[in-house]
Amino acid sequence: MSYHKPEAKTVQDLKDLAHKLRIHSITSTDASKSGHPTSCSSLAEIMSVLFFQQMRLNLKHPRDPSSDRLILSKGHAAPILYAAWAEAGLFPVEELKNLRKIDSDLEGHPTPRLNFIDVGTGSLGQGVAVGAGMAYVGKNFDKADYRTYVVVGDGESAEGSVWESLHFAGHYGLDNLCVIFDVNRLGQSEATSLQHKMDVYRDRLEAFGFNALVVDGHDIDELCKALHCASSTKNKPTAIIAKTYKGKDFPNIEDLDNWHGKPLGDKSAEVIKHLQGMIVNPNVKMSPKKTCKSGAAPEVDITNVKLCTPPNYKLGDSVATRLAYGTALAKIGADNDRVIALDGDTKNSTFSDKLRNAYPERYIECFIAEQNLVGVAIGAACRRRTVAFVSTFATFFTRAFDQIRMGAISQTNVNFVGSHCGCSIGEDGPSQMGLEDVAMFRTIPGSTVFYPSDAVSCERAVELAANTKGVCFIRTSRPNTCVIYNNDETFTVGRGKVVRQKPSDEVLLIGAGITLYECLAAAEQLEKECITARVIDPFTVKPLDVDLILEHGKQCGGRIVVVEDHYQQGGLGEAVLSALAEHRNYLVKHLYVPTVPRSGPPTVLIDMFGISARHIVAAVNGIIKK
Amino acid sequence: MSYHKPEAKTVQDLKDLAHKLRIHSITSTDASKSGHPTSCSSLAEIMSVLFFQQMRLNLKHPRDPSSDRLILSKGHAAPILYAAWAEAGLFPVEELKNLRKIDSDLEGHPTPRLNFIDVGTGSLGQGVAVGAGMAYVGKNFDKADYRTYVVVGDGESAEGSVWESLHFAGHYGLDNLCVIFDVNRLGQSEATSLQHKMDVYRDRLEAFGFNALVVDGHDIDELCKALHCASSTKNKPTAIIAKTYKGKDFPNIEDLDNWHGKPLGDKSAEVIKHLQGMIVNPNVKMSPKKTCKSGAAPEVDITNVKLCTPPNYKLGDSVATRLAYGTALAKIGADNDRVIALDGDTKNSTFSDKLRNAYPERYIECFIAEQNLVGVAIGAACRRRTVAFVSTFATFFTRAFDQIRMGAISQTNVNFVGSHCGCSIGEDGPSQMGLEDVAMFRTIPGSTVFYPSDAVSCERAVELAANTKGVCFIRTSRPNTCVIYNNDETFTVGRGKVVRQKPSDEVLLIGAGITLYECLAAAEQLEKECITARVIDPFTVKPLDVDLILEHGKQCGGRIVVVEDHYQQGGLGEAVLSALAEHRNYLVKHLYVPTVPRSGPPTVLIDMFGISARHIVAAVNGIIKK
Repeated sequence: MSYHKPEAKTVQDLKDLAHKLRIHSITSTDASKSGHPTSCSSLAEIMSVLFFQQMRLNLKHPRDPSSDRLILSKGHAAPILYAAWAEAGLFPVEELKNLRKIDSDLEGHPTPRLNFIDVGTGSLGQGVAVGAGMAYVGKNFDKADYRTYVVVGDGESAEGSVWESLHFAGHYGLDNLCVIFDVNRLGQSEATSLQHKMDVYRDRLEAFGFNALVVDGHDIDELCKALHCASSTKNKPTAIIAKTYKGKDFPNIEDLDNWHGKPLGDKSAEVIKHLQGMIVNPNVKMSPKKTCKSGAAPEVDITNVKLCTPPNYKLGDSVATRLAYGTALAKIGADNDRVIALDGDTKNSTFSDKLRNAYPERYIECFIAEQNLVGVAIGAACRRRTVAFVSTFATFFTRAFDQIRMGAISQTNVNFVGSHCGCSIGEDGPSQMGLEDVAMFRTIPGSTVFYPSDAVSCERAVELAANTKGVCFIRTSRPNTCVIYNNDETFTVGRGKVVRQKPSDEVLLIGAGITLYECLAAAEQLEKECITARVIDPFTVKPLDVDLILEHGKQCGGRIVVVEDHYQQGGLGEAVLSALAEHRNYLVKHLYVPTVPRSGPPTVLIDMFGISARHIVAAVNGIIKK
Repeated sequence: MSYHKPEAKTVQDLKDLAHKLRIHSITSTDASKSGHPTSCSSLAEIMSVLFFQQMRLNLKHPRDPSSDRLILSKGHAAPILYAAWAEAGLFPVEELKNLRKIDSDLEGHPTPRLNFIDVGTGSLGQGVAVGAGMAYVGKNFDKADYRTYVVVGDGESAEGSVWESLHFAGHYGLDNLCVIFDVNRLGQSEATSLQHKMDVYRDRLEAFGFNALVVDGHDIDELCKALHCASSTKNKPTAIIAKTYKGKDFPNIEDLDNWHGKPLGDKSAEVIKHLQGMIVNPNVKMSPKKTCKSGAAPEVDITNVKLCTPPNYKLGDSVATRLAYGTALAKIGADNDRVIALDGDTKNSTFSDKLRNAYPERYIECFIAEQNLVGVAIGAACRRRTVAFVSTFATFFTRAFDQIRMGAISQTNVNFVGSHCGCSIGEDGPSQMGLEDVAMFRTIPGSTVFYPSDAVSCERAVELAANTKGVCFIRTSRPNTCVIYNNDETFTVGRGKVVRQKPSDEVLLIGAGITLYECLAAAEQLEKECITARVIDPFTVKPLDVDLILEHGKQCGGRIVVVEDHYQQGGLGEAVLSALAEHRNYLVKHLYVPTVPRSGPPTVLIDMFGISARHIVAAVNGIIKK
């Protein structure tokens, strides 16, 4: 593909459109009395060229799987993105004045409430990972022609997550990905650390495996040429490093400090006048290129994913739930070829390698970079292209809490599987123990938190997660646990199981994972002391089976003991307390890991940190008369 | 300083010591039946040269502020670190066999339970940030000669956090920092993505501002020369990129897959025999260099930090707590010159710029890289060198949850200040709203969570945090709130305030930040309906003033309404529920933000998402007869 310079008229039209986008950015942020017009202005030519010269879009169906993707990683420049879609004809430009209003989806930062947005941005440095996930799918699964563009601010390029993702894209040779750096020199509170050192950006990007092109980001010709080069470069992603100015063409504002996140207010009239003076054709109108039929993405059905065969265990078998996860993952992978797994070099511990062994092409190794791992999964799951399962040690998802939080804003359906929960992992010590993971995933709006206790329920959790909307988290354990459910037992989100009961029960014990078995052992011991205890396995911590707990708690005199291999805050215990909040006459004794644990054998640690059967028995004896 | 090659005998002694360290790594992991001997072996010459040729240490006081620092970022190689300290004479080598035992502090990954460890490592990719924080303090505050070494694994160098920190170190020209990359080619589950591409590492590190030296990591001479070069290079940090082999000198194990995290077991005898055969002098003994008196770190007193002047507001003044934070920060900065502030390009929003304006040299701009921001603060606070306050938007601390979690394991005293909490920030939308921050900081063992509601209490929170051990978090709000406390009001960690009460009160309202004012407004309205309500400001969410809530809750008929600008899980509401867990006869109505909010005016959002006075009144009416 040789490069043909756009005609002079086209160049002028693109320039005019850039200025129109600038004016929209000013007027919309003035209307909302907040927002970031100067951060938009540095991007105007980039957006003009992307929308009206480069990208293939489907205005009737903006999230058409075959159309090009654009992630505005610097989400605070939302007004110019909205303006570009409006100028492209998706909606009337008049709507831009509803920016940030309570009844408009033109929010301060983009979210998929808008039909042309794939993911929420605004927490900086996350766009490249998402774009890389999309590009990986485009190249390897869809094998389609669509391209993915990510616009990154220079301020946010200080985020390490960006470099994780650049490395990933370089490593996998994602030549269908183009990352555009808007190097406008100024951050929020001062200049960026690299300012306009374009050579440093280029050196870094080349070292990270990119075709790196430095351009004048306000020069239409240079942008067109660089984008052409990007689309014709094979086996390497391209970075276009655009030297720009914040507030470009805003007289007395351009390239000056103290204009971040401020509408122009009483300076607007003068600036708009200046911009209008630069426009040659005020009625300029261009249309984006249309999505091609050739090179289209295939149709994909990711509904109704099933285990290809039911669980196959014997009652009493000793199997770690992390292993059952791997088994189930391979089984749903057999059922649907859009099931994929991603891991961060822990696949032989989480057992995600079971999918890799069966279907190597559907496993994405993300190495030790959990932020990118999560971002790539979110990107891969966009436009319902894949059913993505992401695994690592439960505690290492804390590394990507911000990405997971943004995942909820992005309406993602990614499934997270965290192994090695709690002090029951033993000798590796506290840095490897997930003791805050349930708290973290419970805070995610709309999330489902599975905490299966045996292999049968774990396999069903995987199957359910594959079909459940929103963020799902499955907490798996390192030690083996006993199979307590029959292979044909049915499981439902939000429904717990009573695993031991007698009419005489005086206390309700609730545990999950290894503590369920401590509850059962405690119940055995208590029976010798003539106290009978009921035991519940909640299966999902969120939603919790409130009715089951209320009913059985009441039958047990309102006495409840909750035991978990997790810190006190935000886990199963507080979930139970929330379920009982509006009811008098319940009392809950909560056993949890009270402080930073240490290295030691699992059973010793469980006892040392107060969550073993012995402690449950003592807790029951402490409340049985209350 | 010209370089003098070590004598042949010294080189041989260092080689012998390296092999002894290898043997210790094998025997200790065999004794514990778990651990990472092959990850130790790649490091043996590096550790030998560091301990017995390069670092200046004080064996009587391993955390002497004047001695060199060593951070083993690849914490799973702990056995060789322990072995080096034992061979150096800090404790008997026999103790190494207690590795990972329940009654030994020689844990699976290093923690400061050991007197020679500054920070916990084991969650990968965090060491460079900590080292950079130490080096920044050494160069700029202590102005001392001590040097900081960080040993990084090649697997973990995929973590973006590493690149954030490398950029930071390069930007600030930390020539007293030396980062050693142990490029042993193999990760946990497969080869690293870069394997032995030493040129790629060098190009990346040079582009990130380092003096980058590629060496044979098993060659004593090369290591000595590179470390000399590091210590004589000015204005740039040095990276020593050591090409090594995992399991070096372990026959039939070296450089092979599937040996990560496995003791050698029945292969040990043969390997040890081989290593012994390579040792020339089995009785080799060397001592580390001693810490010099010249270039020592100054004595520092960071106890009893005070506001230099008391709060100075009028009752009824309208002041945002985030602004009061900045005011208080400058005041404690006036009292103690070791108070420092760090921010990630949000200083004009969090108001940490108040310290910068008063004492520019004590403000560290970390740009938009929150993981490094937190890690640098943890490093800066090590060995009690500084009182560090770290600020950004509350929700952006989710980016560094893993670092904060490891901070607790590291026994850090860093203070975190998160502004822009809740949907009350308004138009910027959900990506910028802290709605899970209290849940996150509550999970941190030993943490203190302040949630001041007015400027007076916020200033006192800052003063208390400066003197409180462990992780402190202060949640500040964007909107102005009314000053409700007198300037001489005293505040204590774990003590709330009753801000409105009558003997006839029938319900207890608990709010904090903007919801405290909604509670007060609701109480006003309820009084018109002849229902009197008591209102409590908890001041700290953790520890919560349990006695106060039990007492006043009981006086109000056990009826409690908790209202918070936070998601349901893990925040103030669940903290209150935990406080009441073991008591029957309380009922709690919890009002919280139930889903992802949106852009809009703060007051509209507060009402739309159910936490305004109107909703509190309705909640009270719903429970008043219960």
